[in-house]
Amino acid sequence: VNQAPIPAEILAIGDELTQGWNTDTNSSEIARELLAVGIAGSRITIVGDERAQIAAAFTEASRRAQVIVATGGLGPTEDDITREGAADALGAGQQFHAELWDRIVERFRARGRAIPESNKKQAFLPVGASRIPNANGTAPGFTFELNGAVIFVLPGVPVEMRAMLANFVLPQLRERFPGAARYHRNVVKCFGSSEAAIGEAIADLMARGADPIVGITVSRVTSTISIVSANEAAAARVAGEVAARLGPVVYSRRDEPIEQAVAQLLLSKNATIAVAESCTGGLAAAFLASVPGVSAVLKEGFVTYSNDAKIARLGVSPELLASHGAVSEECARAMAEGAREAAGADVGVGITGIAGPGGGTREKPVGLVFIAIALAAETRAARYNFAGLERNLLREIAARQALDQVRRAILGLPA
Amino acid sequence: VNQAPIPAEILAIGDELTQGWNTDTNSSEIARELLAVGIAGSRITIVGDERAQIAAAFTEASRRAQVIVATGGLGPTEDDITREGAADALGAGQQFHAELWDRIVERFRARGRAIPESNKKQAFLPVGASRIPNANGTAPGFTFELNGAVIFVLPGVPVEMRAMLANFVLPQLRERFPGAARYHRNVVKCFGSSEAAIGEAIADLMARGADPIVGITVSRVTSTISIVSANEAAAARVAGEVAARLGPVVYSRRDEPIEQAVAQLLLSKNATIAVAESCTGGLAAAFLASVPGVSAVLKEGFVTYSNDAKIARLGVSPELLASHGAVSEECARAMAEGAREAAGADVGVGITGIAGPGGGTREKPVGLVFIAIALAAETRAARYNFAGLERNLLREIAARQALDQVRRAILGLPA
Repeated sequence: VNQAPIPAEILAIGDELTQGWNTDTNSSEIARELLAVGIAGSRITIVGDERAQIAAAFTEASRRAQVIVATGGLGPTEDDITREGAADALGAGQQFHAELWDRIVERFRARGRAIPESNKKQAFLPVGASRIPNANGTAPGFTFELNGAVIFVLPGVPVEMRAMLANFVLPQLRERFPGAARYHRNVVKCFGSSEAAIGEAIADLMARGADPIVGITVSRVTSTISIVSANEAAAARVAGEVAARLGPVVYSRRDEPIEQAVAQLLLSKNATIAVAESCTGGLAAAFLASVPGVSAVLKEGFVTYSNDAKIARLGVSPELLASHGAVSEECARAMAEGAREAAGADVGVGITGIAGPGGGTREKPVGLVFIAIALAAETRAARYNFAGLERNLLREIAARQALDQVRRAILGLPA
Repeated sequence: VNQAPIPAEILAIGDELTQGWNTDTNSSEIARELLAVGIAGSRITIVGDERAQIAAAFTEASRRAQVIVATGGLGPTEDDITREGAADALGAGQQFHAELWDRIVERFRARGRAIPESNKKQAFLPVGASRIPNANGTAPGFTFELNGAVIFVLPGVPVEMRAMLANFVLPQLRERFPGAARYHRNVVKCFGSSEAAIGEAIADLMARGADPIVGITVSRVTSTISIVSANEAAAARVAGEVAARLGPVVYSRRDEPIEQAVAQLLLSKNATIAVAESCTGGLAAAFLASVPGVSAVLKEGFVTYSNDAKIARLGVSPELLASHGAVSEECARAMAEGAREAAGADVGVGITGIAGPGGGTREKPVGLVFIAIALAAETRAARYNFAGLERNLLREIAARQALDQVRRAILGLPA
């Protein structure tokens, strides 16, 4: 079954994309998901909300590819014109579907909201197309065939697109192309290592034409190493090799953010946690709270921006603040210990730093962050220099860095 | 000068893009820069590192557009094949440029590095193309004409692409199309209104072919209405009309998230705030903390997941929790008032709800959220039904909804 992958194209629709106001992130997500079922994206086309352009894009793609996945332009407003473009490509008109309208009415009713007349548009589909259900929004998708290609049209809203791709498109494609080489993707996730450093450690595995294909993408200090092959055992073996070479920077073998791995670790150890944050302003607690079921271990969070709050809530001593300042290793330690004690938790976290753009000094420049982790036996602290990062990227990275330190402290790894 | 914009296309090249390992961010950046000089991107095409595909993409685009900007595939390795594709589109061969080679040699020498033989490739350009200097890397770009279109080919590395676009491509385009209409963009931002409702209110302004062009994009309950025109006064006038029609759902006339508008409002009124969060887990505080300078008004955040923390930190009474439960309007009010009092702030916020996926009951289903805002004079509360939203989308929307309620409370608008 290691045959050539089925050729596919992706079509993204929206003036906001061609004019550059938004970056299209749907297409790369779709490409990755298609590859996993043996469908290889060979071209991505992005056109604006122009009926003739959309129709032409469908027609051209259908002559080159066997599978087309399109997103965008299914909303209720005037400029959402993908239905019309698809109908033109089919040489057909549009048809009202009463059951679609009922669903839309139901959705509005459930939220106690009036239905704008314009939503009626979303109950129409091109003649010859059949609907793809949308559990997360009013815009149904649809599927049709053109020049022998099967075409799926999904909304551009990522959460809607993602669910419809997983629940409808991928199962249909698996059924339609049962012999397609299924690509198996293994993932190794790392926090805090550079792409170059990772690349150097696994350069031989990343050679061009190698099977499995090994690739790195880095986003906000989290690296995702993908190991893809039609040979499931080979993908798993090489993923194991990658993880072994990279060592303690690896926080998960699943495609999940670090907060999920850390929450699972806390849940598995039945270790409760309390987080005291200054510059991150609640983000570390919010990352943890993103994980379902975390309430069993997340006891409390303290957003203590002011010295008063650090003193009142965490018992940081005014003398410590006067002598070392709020941005200091001593303060991070006192915050972590104070949070642990006040909340009666097993693990305490303290984060303090200067997120900028203002507030820096020569001794304590913007980007300086201290993170402390308090356990029963010891409190560990580390100093970071995130100079040059934009305020909110810095805050995000600092919050996740703290979670990585929680992981390292619990597992007994070096800070 | 109010002529139609010059049609342009963007071409991004790389297997890592078509296979989805990387998201193409160059194209949207190029599109925005082009629009500012009156060149409107109408299509973005992404193809892999396949010589024939690249040649075809150049040829097709040159038949539709007057300007083409391409990025990617100019590196020294085997798979970088954009030069060959461009030469094929021109029906030409490649030519060695001694002065390019000298520059590459010089660049390596300056860093004390040996020159890999493979870099010689970068000293070749298609016959008929002229070079675009690259101050930040070894890969020169090049420009040529095809079917009457002017084509610029730049490297895919963002920092190299960006500099060459600014220093070479945009000046050339300004010179070549001196009469091109420069576009001005105004923005109206709304929170909590559906795309359909907004579309209905401004349908006449969104009519196709209208000047200014009015378009809506919605992301996570925040709507962005873009009003774009070569006529600066017209864009501003229509933006004012849009804002007037939409009324209190408009939180800003700048392209900023609601937390920024609310932080500015608090700073302008010198009103301090404290936030008590259950289901949002620190996210509302973190959103506020994303705004530089907010420390002057953000006194404190309380992430009170447990009943114990609600009682200890916010003074919520055990009786209230026993009779109404933690997810109740009463509890949200007590949290808002408790946060305001404990922190000594002017505004207190209380958020409590069921984010799911577990924890729902028949009376209190997943998606039920109560938000209260405590001011000196009164405490306001509202109930929301966010059923059907994924846990973290729900948390994000609930946190921003609370900030919108802060805005409304301070401005005396209805909840």
